[in-house]
Amino acid sequence: MNNELLFQQIQKKRSFLCVGLDTDIQRVPKNLLNAADPVLAFNRKIIDATADYTVAYKPNIAFYESLGWKGWHTLEKTVEYLKSKYPEIFLIADAKRGDIGNTSDLYARAFFEKLDFDAVTVAPYMGEDSVKPFMNYTEKWVVLLALTSNEGAADFQYLKNEESGDQLFESVLKTSQNWGTPENMMYVVGATKAEKLKEIRQIVPDHFLLVPGVGAQGGSLQEVAKNGMNSHCGLLVNSSRGIIYASGEKDFAKKAGEAAKAVQQEMELLLKEKGL
Amino acid sequence: MNNELLFQQIQKKRSFLCVGLDTDIQRVPKNLLNAADPVLAFNRKIIDATADYTVAYKPNIAFYESLGWKGWHTLEKTVEYLKSKYPEIFLIADAKRGDIGNTSDLYARAFFEKLDFDAVTVAPYMGEDSVKPFMNYTEKWVVLLALTSNEGAADFQYLKNEESGDQLFESVLKTSQNWGTPENMMYVVGATKAEKLKEIRQIVPDHFLLVPGVGAQGGSLQEVAKNGMNSHCGLLVNSSRGIIYASGEKDFAKKAGEAAKAVQQEMELLLKEKGL
Repeated sequence: MNNELLFQQIQKKRSFLCVGLDTDIQRVPKNLLNAADPVLAFNRKIIDATADYTVAYKPNIAFYESLGWKGWHTLEKTVEYLKSKYPEIFLIADAKRGDIGNTSDLYARAFFEKLDFDAVTVAPYMGEDSVKPFMNYTEKWVVLLALTSNEGAADFQYLKNEESGDQLFESVLKTSQNWGTPENMMYVVGATKAEKLKEIRQIVPDHFLLVPGVGAQGGSLQEVAKNGMNSHCGLLVNSSRGIIYASGEKDFAKKAGEAAKAVQQEMELLLKEKGL
Repeated sequence: MNNELLFQQIQKKRSFLCVGLDTDIQRVPKNLLNAADPVLAFNRKIIDATADYTVAYKPNIAFYESLGWKGWHTLEKTVEYLKSKYPEIFLIADAKRGDIGNTSDLYARAFFEKLDFDAVTVAPYMGEDSVKPFMNYTEKWVVLLALTSNEGAADFQYLKNEESGDQLFESVLKTSQNWGTPENMMYVVGATKAEKLKEIRQIVPDHFLLVPGVGAQGGSLQEVAKNGMNSHCGLLVNSSRGIIYASGEKDFAKKAGEAAKAVQQEMELLLKEKGL
């Protein structure tokens, strides 16, 4: 999917919400546990209930991988379901991969050929040749980790380079702009440091930013929009637990839909404020 | 597996070789392509032919993941084969994972519970809480990326911190020592910069180093041993393509065994020189 189509979806749905499909088998409501594939059954119902309010889904691969090959099978079936029923919705594999070139090639094959994701999150530590293989596919995207929302982000991401004065996450943003374009690259920017978003927007004015950490991790949507939105929105804000686990009972899908709608309505106002 | 047992294996086999099971379905010899699971059939024969000369195996997860859920099934069966037939051999999942704490928990579950690996390679970018969940398991190991062997290593790993004067990979080595011990943590150090190994040994005198990049990627085993070996060896040197693809014909297993034996013999001399 290209930039333009993604922006069209945002304008049409009045939303820049990404729903994280971090489906934990231990949190699937009891009434689904007799299904042949409880995680798939849960995902389908969550997707159907939230699709009107979201422009992207982001399965977190760890949740599927922790179930072994059966989990991968569930992931494949979830992607198939999404691509057949909601082909207009942007699909991000939250995988945080990254390895030497010939190995990244294979990760790209895993997520863009074997699975039909539109984007995959990639870790920058190993540099250019670990990232570029993911960009050899037309209309597929790398979502590169820049500033993450967890506590450990402080360990290395803020280290200041003696030559440029840039913090590591700033070096990542600046250097990686030579590897791709705003048409095939986005950045992960944690919402816990909303004031940082303003600085980041100056470095990458045109790129989409994938913002986790709104909700359970404590960021504010208003702050994110104020500091991060650009003329084509340029934001995908992720919420996982706040939506998919809005209820742990039989009514989980209905409640997830309501939670997604509430976020969408807030986003609609923010888009309107920006004249989008 | 603990440090002591690993060192015992090294002394017994006179080897610190790790064989990378980077099995590419496109390079599996024709005579195996009719097997129910050609990659598994290949792995079994490679393992049987090389087990006498190696103390560790390291499946590169990307190769399995690129085949979808069936690839994960093959990986599971490969691990089961190794653990039942060669329980004394150290098993490393080359996965380069790393995510926020609750997600790293799930990756740890994937590799240490669902699969019975002894160690997993982890990327440091997201800091402490992305790494520590892998160390909540007794006698399991994190192999943290420090200095990698690819060209892109130069993009960020050499950036010098203005406060400490440390390059990023040095900061990773120093900071991460507070997270674990030489009993549950190793480091990936590329062999393409053998002179760097000497510096790295001063920072982490006791930790095992996993050294890729000998062979196909161009490092020298002698240089690695000279600069990196400590009193309990402290090295695992990986070779993948040079061994598993020593021949692409019917004799692939025999040739792989010969290639592994040649490396082992070189290692035996290096251990002897060090008095081990």
